[in-house]
Amino acid sequence: MQTTDGITNRAEEVIARCQKLARFSEDSGSTRRTFLSSPMRDCHREIARWIEPLGAEVRIDAAGNLRGFYRGADSNAPRLLVGSHLDTVPNAGAYDGSLGVVLAIALLTALDGRRLPFGIEVVGFSEEEGVRFGTPFIGSRALTGRLDEELLSHQDARGISVHKAIKDFGLNPGDIAHAALRNDILGYVEFHIEQGPVLETLMRPLGVVEAIAGQSRLEFIFLGRSNHAGTTPMHLRYDAIAGAAEWITAVEREAQNIPNLVATVGTIEAKPGAINVIAGEARLTLDIRHGLDGIRAQAVDNLIRQAEEIAKRRGLSVSRNILLNQQAVAMDPFLVSEVELAVRKAGCEPHHMVSGAGHDAMILAEKVPAAMIFLRTRGGISHDPAESVARDDVAKAIECGLHLLDQLASSSTLQKRMCRA
Amino acid sequence: MQTTDGITNRAEEVIARCQKLARFSEDSGSTRRTFLSSPMRDCHREIARWIEPLGAEVRIDAAGNLRGFYRGADSNAPRLLVGSHLDTVPNAGAYDGSLGVVLAIALLTALDGRRLPFGIEVVGFSEEEGVRFGTPFIGSRALTGRLDEELLSHQDARGISVHKAIKDFGLNPGDIAHAALRNDILGYVEFHIEQGPVLETLMRPLGVVEAIAGQSRLEFIFLGRSNHAGTTPMHLRYDAIAGAAEWITAVEREAQNIPNLVATVGTIEAKPGAINVIAGEARLTLDIRHGLDGIRAQAVDNLIRQAEEIAKRRGLSVSRNILLNQQAVAMDPFLVSEVELAVRKAGCEPHHMVSGAGHDAMILAEKVPAAMIFLRTRGGISHDPAESVARDDVAKAIECGLHLLDQLASSSTLQKRMCRA
Repeated sequence: MQTTDGITNRAEEVIARCQKLARFSEDSGSTRRTFLSSPMRDCHREIARWIEPLGAEVRIDAAGNLRGFYRGADSNAPRLLVGSHLDTVPNAGAYDGSLGVVLAIALLTALDGRRLPFGIEVVGFSEEEGVRFGTPFIGSRALTGRLDEELLSHQDARGISVHKAIKDFGLNPGDIAHAALRNDILGYVEFHIEQGPVLETLMRPLGVVEAIAGQSRLEFIFLGRSNHAGTTPMHLRYDAIAGAAEWITAVEREAQNIPNLVATVGTIEAKPGAINVIAGEARLTLDIRHGLDGIRAQAVDNLIRQAEEIAKRRGLSVSRNILLNQQAVAMDPFLVSEVELAVRKAGCEPHHMVSGAGHDAMILAEKVPAAMIFLRTRGGISHDPAESVARDDVAKAIECGLHLLDQLASSSTLQKRMCRA
Repeated sequence: MQTTDGITNRAEEVIARCQKLARFSEDSGSTRRTFLSSPMRDCHREIARWIEPLGAEVRIDAAGNLRGFYRGADSNAPRLLVGSHLDTVPNAGAYDGSLGVVLAIALLTALDGRRLPFGIEVVGFSEEEGVRFGTPFIGSRALTGRLDEELLSHQDARGISVHKAIKDFGLNPGDIAHAALRNDILGYVEFHIEQGPVLETLMRPLGVVEAIAGQSRLEFIFLGRSNHAGTTPMHLRYDAIAGAAEWITAVEREAQNIPNLVATVGTIEAKPGAINVIAGEARLTLDIRHGLDGIRAQAVDNLIRQAEEIAKRRGLSVSRNILLNQQAVAMDPFLVSEVELAVRKAGCEPHHMVSGAGHDAMILAEKVPAAMIFLRTRGGISHDPAESVARDDVAKAIECGLHLLDQLASSSTLQKRMCRA
């Protein structure tokens, strides 16, 4: 293990590098770096300049993912993927995604040429946020063989397809199959900012992700009867906003009563939407997430039943549309236990948690063992220029990563997996 | 009193005439007749053809109000105003406003040339709905001397001022002062559809309006903290929609607990308004009305206090803007009691009620004794082509109106008022 001073310096470098990448932007004065944009090319070039001197090879695959390969002791050794995504939302911070890539490079740097029984492939995914094409995870889908013709045909706001964007960037869509993972992958490890307030509230630097929450998204439409706000007595009203409001309080109560469930009504619209007219229609959305699909499904059922009860009692009708039904994705138990041990070795009390947000690890987990480590996010703020991480937390993440590599290098479980690989 | 058959025929004629006026429209296929529009001129012409053969004189005053004067037995006798408004909302029904004017003409017709101790002036107000200039009651304000320079300068969507609209119609804005009532007015009586469901629910044809409700309109803004719907646990949220929803249920409860109070949240908007983001801001409006100003003011205070309590408990802030504060207007007690008697003589059980909507009678009441009679509105529907009244209810209204004229003709109270006039 490195000296504490060495680790602190490395952590400072990680933060400086994240801030440098944030300057590769489509917008002047703020960070916005979408899939295969021109600043993404500059970002790749910069990262290659950091990786190549470490004795690793860098290529950009046909889906625009940066792949930096640091071979193992044996040139045929299987590989461990470490990374995150390089694209950003508009008006982004400097750490969401980039931090996981830069931290992976910091681990290679710390190895200082030492070769492990497995290779390490640093991955900088080209697309995770879904900004340009409205569909997220384009980069990681290519690694799992799911960047198919349908997805290639999606168009951005200017009518450019994913297929054409790839060609315009100088890549060959015909090579996408070569971006897919081969059967020599030991696993995928992703460091990412938490993007929530839990670790900060618990005063713990690092979180061990056990699963990525499943989520359901639904639209609910309450229909009543639009009427005059002055001439319609309270007992003769069919007020869609009042019914929706009662249900919103029920949504909140349901989520408060079930541990780790989160449920959000983030949009509401009423018609006709006039100050002196009782609303005849209220449209609102529900976003509900949990690490266990059964609990989420039960909560959705309860909330549908409560909406129907509220509507019936008030003489309203209620209908719903399911917009998304995404199952929870478990992280690999072996990798999770190794991550937990590495967090402890770094001197931190690990907090086991479910990620409420989707991440590339969720896509990779379909094909390979995956694990995620969350870094405490100041104020829980992300997708905002105010996004920040503490230097000391980054240092703990580096320590954790180095312990993890050492553990995996000497793990008999991993050796068995390597034999199978 | 006329024969029942005669009254029924007259009621049918009233309905047919309302339906005929509904065809004078700016829009083809639906009724829209705004202040000093071209179809308003056709409407005036048609009404003049109905009034003039009855021995009454018709003029259009400088504010575009139709004034049909049927003199009393003594040519210097004071006058009773009977009428309503002739303008409509877009996609209007045939009865809101027009019915009160056409019913007044039906009363003159039924008098069949008989002169009363007072004259009757049929008034068809030019503007009550506020559609063209965003400000209602332009017509009745002229009668009370409140169509002033400020109001004359208001512009419509095409940038035409009230002043210019009057000139363009061929009238002289310089004559507006002559539209004002002189001191020879005994009172104002207005028949109008209820525009609400109360009389229908009670199965009573006619309502006696005791007051026009005062109303307050406020905007409330709840501010919380916008955050990720997946990564923010329930206990660490500052959800503006959830706070607003709790308060909406409090608004409804408050109104349900206070007799005759109506309170409505008719608009709600949330920001940022994304399905997967906790709302940091919710803006909503409150429209609250009651016949007694003290009760309304107390309810507004209670709801402000409850909004503050809810916000405080949830770590939100709440602010408010007062958009309107309009006092209740009482109808004239003497006229109200005479109307009640006339309703009974017409064979109906009168229902005393507060008008939740504003009407020209509210403006006239500032200067002269005023009374209103509501007609049951099928389904409570108004401002819609489905607006309708029953023929038998119109017949009851005509009977009521004729009884009222006879009562007033022999009233000692009115005679005293006439002496003062």
